[in-house]
Amino acid sequence: MSWLKRPVKGLLLDISGVLRDGDHVIPGSLEAVQRLQASGIPFRLVTNETQVTVEKTVEKLTKLGFTGICPSSIFAPAPAVAAHLRENSLRGYLLVHPNVLPQFEGVETTEPNCVVVGDAAEHFNYERLNQAFRVLLSLRDKEEPMRLFSLGKGRYYKEEDGLCLDLGPFTAALEYATGAQAQIFGKPNATFFQAALKDLSLSPEEVVMIGDDIVGDVGGAQGAGLRGVLVRTGKFRASDENHDTVKPDAIVDNLSQAVELIMNQNL
Amino acid sequence: MSWLKRPVKGLLLDISGVLRDGDHVIPGSLEAVQRLQASGIPFRLVTNETQVTVEKTVEKLTKLGFTGICPSSIFAPAPAVAAHLRENSLRGYLLVHPNVLPQFEGVETTEPNCVVVGDAAEHFNYERLNQAFRVLLSLRDKEEPMRLFSLGKGRYYKEEDGLCLDLGPFTAALEYATGAQAQIFGKPNATFFQAALKDLSLSPEEVVMIGDDIVGDVGGAQGAGLRGVLVRTGKFRASDENHDTVKPDAIVDNLSQAVELIMNQNL
Repeated sequence: MSWLKRPVKGLLLDISGVLRDGDHVIPGSLEAVQRLQASGIPFRLVTNETQVTVEKTVEKLTKLGFTGICPSSIFAPAPAVAAHLRENSLRGYLLVHPNVLPQFEGVETTEPNCVVVGDAAEHFNYERLNQAFRVLLSLRDKEEPMRLFSLGKGRYYKEEDGLCLDLGPFTAALEYATGAQAQIFGKPNATFFQAALKDLSLSPEEVVMIGDDIVGDVGGAQGAGLRGVLVRTGKFRASDENHDTVKPDAIVDNLSQAVELIMNQNL
Repeated sequence: MSWLKRPVKGLLLDISGVLRDGDHVIPGSLEAVQRLQASGIPFRLVTNETQVTVEKTVEKLTKLGFTGICPSSIFAPAPAVAAHLRENSLRGYLLVHPNVLPQFEGVETTEPNCVVVGDAAEHFNYERLNQAFRVLLSLRDKEEPMRLFSLGKGRYYKEEDGLCLDLGPFTAALEYATGAQAQIFGKPNATFFQAALKDLSLSPEEVVMIGDDIVGDVGGAQGAGLRGVLVRTGKFRASDENHDTVKPDAIVDNLSQAVELIMNQNL
């Protein structure tokens, strides 16, 4: 298998659709993570989840039986953009879900000079979108850049009662209204993968990303120089195997099979 | 003046920014309309107003002193799209302002197979956008065209408390989420101008459009083969005089001046 010709020194794993599907563990994933932890191959979790804090994500994983995972090993867009705002002393208009607000502790929100769009779901409304729009236009009027930061660019996702609009359409609305172009935090942005690589102290060629999203996970990782492996779980669809633009380095049934192959190779 | 070399046999007038500005008559417009009515030069009003019915528009104009204007002489996107739905027996999911709903009398709304986006303003919310989104995806699933009709494509407009998002950004959001491309009813769509021309029984070369929107009014009219005259009232900005793509056939101070010039020419 050509994707294993180069040794795998570290892994990046998506959470939703790889470790769990909603409130259910994907069969074999619990054991696969335990094998990785026992083997000493380092891994990080990279997720575009923007409705909760990484602490809540750990809590949820722990409940499902995934142990030994700490918040600092999870890379999510909200803490990434919050760090960007703090480092650059930017004051944010936070159009995000209330559940993720704790992630923005220490970020100034008075007299905002940038807009952050997360998956606010039912908290998206005309008034808040209008406020975000006015912040961007006020920047334009001051001849400052219209800083619009988006925690991903997803079109929609599946909830129990059907498909739901993700944050991407709302970012597109603000782009259309203002002419600004959003800077994306999260997958498939290369910067996002690089932050996780830096934390692993590994180079892109040494690391494999495993995910269920052909574009966000596999294409994104490949764009950052990593190998990208697609699993046939989560949002995977048969048509992904013949995607127009993204060719995964490998397609496996699930995380368990990917880890099995890597273990055999690394013996 | 070259734009008057060809006789002007009819006129199309924008309402907001040409006849009135909010609740105020634009100086000279009342007399200009009376002169037109006395002269026998036919005219129609073309507006992208989508928050009220044409009957309400007439009522508002009458209150300001504009008399002798009937609803059938006003061309607005909502009655145009409502007619399209009725003629094609389409069932609409109406994401529009409640005030404009009477315009959709006789349009079926159960089991919708198309989406109509108007300026719903504060009635835009996550739930309704999600419902519209699901209608479009259900059409895709049935391999039907994703019929998305938008009553214009404005980015924003001015209210007393500041700039406000128009319907365009919300149409853009649904386009981004679904991959559908909206069909625009209203200016600058050529079909919209053609309907008004047909009602005048005149050809495009015989008619002049007068408006304050360099792109929607002037560019739109020119695209449909009419002459387009820009007024320096309403939303006009000095930078419009050197617009990148649209060159008005003439720029005049206001409607009054345009009518004066046309009258002298038509003697």
